[in-house]
Amino acid sequence: MEKVIQELIKFRNERDWEQFHNPKDLAVAINVEAGELLELFLWKDAKDAKKDKIKEELADVFAYSLLLAEKYNFDVEEIILDKIKQNGIKYPIDKAKGTAKKYDEL
Amino acid sequence: MEKVIQELIKFRNERDWEQFHNPKDLAVAINVEAGELLELFLWKDAKDAKKDKIKEELADVFAYSLLLAEKYNFDVEEIILDKIKQNGIKYPIDKAKGTAKKYDEL
Amino acid sequence: MEKVIQELIKFRNERDWEQFHNPKDLAVAINVEAGELLELFLWKDAKDAKKDKIKEELADVFAYSLLLAEKYNFDVEEIILDKIKQNGIKYPIDKAKGTAKKYDEL
Amino acid sequence: MEKVIQELIKFRNERDWEQFHNPKDLAVAINVEAGELLELFLWKDAKDAKKDKIKEELADVFAYSLLLAEKYNFDVEEIILDKIKQNGIKYPIDKAKGTAKKYDEL
Repeated sequence: MEKVIQELIKFRNERDWEQFHNPKDLAVAINVEAGELLELFLWKDAKDAKKDKIKEELADVFAYSLLLAEKYNFDVEEIILDKIKQNGIKYPIDKAKGTAKKYDEL
Repeated sequence: MEKVIQELIKFRNERDWEQFHNPKDLAVAINVEAGELLELFLWKDAKDAKKDKIKEELADVFAYSLLLAEKYNFDVEEIILDKIKQNGIKYPIDKAKGTAKKYDEL
Repeated sequence: MEKVIQELIKFRNERDWEQFHNPKDLAVAINVEAGELLELFLWKDAKDAKKDKIKEELADVFAYSLLLAEKYNFDVEEIILDKIKQNGIKYPIDKAKGTAKKYDEL
Repeated sequence: MEKVIQELIKFRNERDWEQFHNPKDLAVAINVEAGELLELFLWKDAKDAKKDKIKEELADVFAYSLLLAEKYNFDVEEIILDKIKQNGIKYPIDKAKGTAKKYDEL
């Protein structure tokens, strides 16, 4: 993933866009892109959503998420593995198995 | 990143959650988590947002994004690099440098 | 507001769209439109956002919110007044005055 | 609706919160609340979502939408009726009837 992050930063710097990329606007950008991704599923079943478009919008979500992680010097793999560990406590297998309930309703 | 994806799938399968993880609901989940991330910046400057919470919510955005990518067998690095290439055409350096305008206004 | 709701329903029914307007997809639509509204503020100060576009996207947020309220037979004025009352308890004036903190941090 | 708007403004002013309510943060707030509303439908069918919670989260979406409209002195009924008119052109009945396609695919 390191190579991808370097490409994203190169793209940003070549356009002198770092001035716009404060963490708050990056979080806004993630939401905007997540909304565009979601639109592809609006009024339809998942199977009718267009895979090619999903690929593009999901790539945008990843791109801004990586740029936000980079702002805070987060190691992406590490923060996900940490969160999985945390979620393991919130959602113990014996209670969470087969149910979509939120942890505070288990 | 392959290891992280395997951990996410293991976590999901141990809880028998694949039944809930259709692509539409995963796109919904990405939006829900993106909203929780955004809330950390609400009514404040980026510098006052809590880094520890950002780490957790951003991890959730990544987690569901990776699970959605996995559903479609997308190679995450590849789709981001493809999108960077595409954006290079939409945002040529000489036109896009130093401006936050959208491509259709350049 | 009753007149507006009737116009929204007429518009929907003339196009035979009620079949798509289940509550989950309406909630998805609200998020999609909220994202489009948010995009108008991306990378910029509020004063540089385009008022004409804000008008349109905000109208869309209202439209789907009204259609969702109608699905559940909610009285819009009533549910907002109820929520204000509830928030008055969560955010007592003496504690909440002048601070943007969330209720669980007051 | 005028009465509700006055109540929202009273609630805000009693807490001296106007300082935080710039249009960009209000748009952020709408997204945060829209995300909380959407979460109520996550991993489930609409029929299994909790009506009481939907009422509360939808009220929040309305509240911030009204406060944003007030910032720009928009007449809410007017902007929705204008948008319905505009959508009538984008989605002519004969083309749009019975299909969930976006206007650019009709």
